[in-house]
Amino acid sequence: MKKLVLLYGLFVLIFLVIVAVYFRPTYLDSWDEVDKGLKGEPGEEYVMVTFQAGIDYWRPVLKGFEDAAEALNVSVDYRGSTQYDVHEQMTVLEQVIARKPAGIALTAMDPEALNVSINKAVDAGIPIVLFDSGADGSKAYSFLGTNNYNAGVTAAHEFAKLLDGEGQVAIITLPNQLNHQERVKGFEDTIRMEYSRMRIVAVKDGKGDVVVSRQMAQEAMDNYPDLRGIFITEAVGGVGVAEAVIERGRVGDVKIISFDTDKGTLDMIQEGVISATLAQGTWNMGYWSLQFLFHLHHGLVQPQTSDGGNQRLLPPNVDTGVTVVTRENVEDYYAR
Amino acid sequence: MKKLVLLYGLFVLIFLVIVAVYFRPTYLDSWDEVDKGLKGEPGEEYVMVTFQAGIDYWRPVLKGFEDAAEALNVSVDYRGSTQYDVHEQMTVLEQVIARKPAGIALTAMDPEALNVSINKAVDAGIPIVLFDSGADGSKAYSFLGTNNYNAGVTAAHEFAKLLDGEGQVAIITLPNQLNHQERVKGFEDTIRMEYSRMRIVAVKDGKGDVVVSRQMAQEAMDNYPDLRGIFITEAVGGVGVAEAVIERGRVGDVKIISFDTDKGTLDMIQEGVISATLAQGTWNMGYWSLQFLFHLHHGLVQPQTSDGGNQRLLPPNVDTGVTVVTRENVEDYYAR
Repeated sequence: MKKLVLLYGLFVLIFLVIVAVYFRPTYLDSWDEVDKGLKGEPGEEYVMVTFQAGIDYWRPVLKGFEDAAEALNVSVDYRGSTQYDVHEQMTVLEQVIARKPAGIALTAMDPEALNVSINKAVDAGIPIVLFDSGADGSKAYSFLGTNNYNAGVTAAHEFAKLLDGEGQVAIITLPNQLNHQERVKGFEDTIRMEYSRMRIVAVKDGKGDVVVSRQMAQEAMDNYPDLRGIFITEAVGGVGVAEAVIERGRVGDVKIISFDTDKGTLDMIQEGVISATLAQGTWNMGYWSLQFLFHLHHGLVQPQTSDGGNQRLLPPNVDTGVTVVTRENVEDYYAR
Repeated sequence: MKKLVLLYGLFVLIFLVIVAVYFRPTYLDSWDEVDKGLKGEPGEEYVMVTFQAGIDYWRPVLKGFEDAAEALNVSVDYRGSTQYDVHEQMTVLEQVIARKPAGIALTAMDPEALNVSINKAVDAGIPIVLFDSGADGSKAYSFLGTNNYNAGVTAAHEFAKLLDGEGQVAIITLPNQLNHQERVKGFEDTIRMEYSRMRIVAVKDGKGDVVVSRQMAQEAMDNYPDLRGIFITEAVGGVGVAEAVIERGRVGDVKIISFDTDKGTLDMIQEGVISATLAQGTWNMGYWSLQFLFHLHHGLVQPQTSDGGNQRLLPPNVDTGVTVVTRENVEDYYAR
């Protein structure tokens, strides 16, 4: 009988030891290497907020955001306005702020309209970083997105490769939008400074529209019979330009470089009509946005100065880069 | 006797269970929340490589590098050439590569001379990122440093604040060095586009020298009696400009904005002769360099495409930003 009691006692002891080891509170673990490393709590929630929340473009951003959350053991949520409507986005953002999440990654539909909400959240201790589309005047800690000037530079080098550094090219763009102005400027500066035998003969407004872009491409080819290339700086018009080149029977003769990885664009690359397109670093936008928010939430950023107000806690600008997509690697971009 | 054997057996069992729980191989732990999070192995060593390894400027970079290593539970080492000598740096870099570390953060004394070594290491699977001073043509995965154009923009806005957006300013710079050209361009563009009542009346070569910079500042004040400000784009000459303003009895009347946080510059800010200086985001350079290397080493970067060669695994460019240092927060910069 005594023996049995002893045995039970020992089993209970083993059980307790195992339980204690497994469920010990983490604050006791500073001496324990098992728990070093960057790790949040599962209840720690970060929210990504977009506009036109349903479009494909945001999917790899959210994937990056989720991958970082998985790596850091935290939770994420995804919100956004359904429409291209800044008032709707403002409402969504206010609702998210009211939940007091651990941090918010936001892409701003308008560079100013959301600043009051952003600043209110930051002042209340909810970290916000911006991705893809920024809001310069706000108190958000960082902007992570494509450096559009650098993207234009990349397009210029790619054209020089396609054309052996020689010939006339045209640009179809959105002349009133800052990000497109920057793409054009990077492209123009690079052609002018590095490729003396290339020349930009026309810069046209494609209005972000397939039909208008097709028409502009036709005009450019008609006006400049020696035209060797067209750079279209936005996603929608790429297919229109491709159609124009097919209609004029100039496939292969007039090279096209487009922007982003819409399905229509990828199809035209596979068919050899569009030579290349520039894929933005969307996964990196999401991944490093979450990392930055995590670091702000946990105070892992640069040691604060005593006055606190003046320090850059994070890198203010992260260029997430572009990747050149051609027939060789186009397959990889369908999957997303 | 049997009872004793049983007892011993049970103690051994308890011991084994505890050992097994504590020392279980980590690959069995995917189900166990305790082990989630980003964490390396203590034997995993990352190396930071500089030139003129002893100067103060690198100290906060190394602090950031070490802080990230602490957070991620990995080891770091610091190497560099003792002199401003690219051959010595090349030797040091080769020695570091030969040790096959988990990753190398490098600041390149020369934008091309180290490319062969860098590319060799990357091809051999040793990740390299660049900080502070880059090497554009190399296979390094990212560059983390001050965007000098943006730093010039910040200086211009700061001058506009100091001068209520009105008056003549001069620039003293190193006209042949790219980073200084960019600072000047950001400054000039901002003044021209945003402050119509300010004007840049002179751009002079201070040769990175106290005496020459003092002389250039004197000339600028003598030639332009209405001069209200001097922007000196590099660290060494700042004290020279300050001395010139003292000698001409123009303290407070001619404002100075300098660069970096050398002790002499900080002293002159405390005395009210230099109005502000721009501190670079050195801690962030070190911290995020290590984070990037850790992500490359562990394959935590953007999912590879099947062709593998064309993807941007990391953001190619991180602007680590500048902080404006004035009399209000100058104390914080002595400590470093």
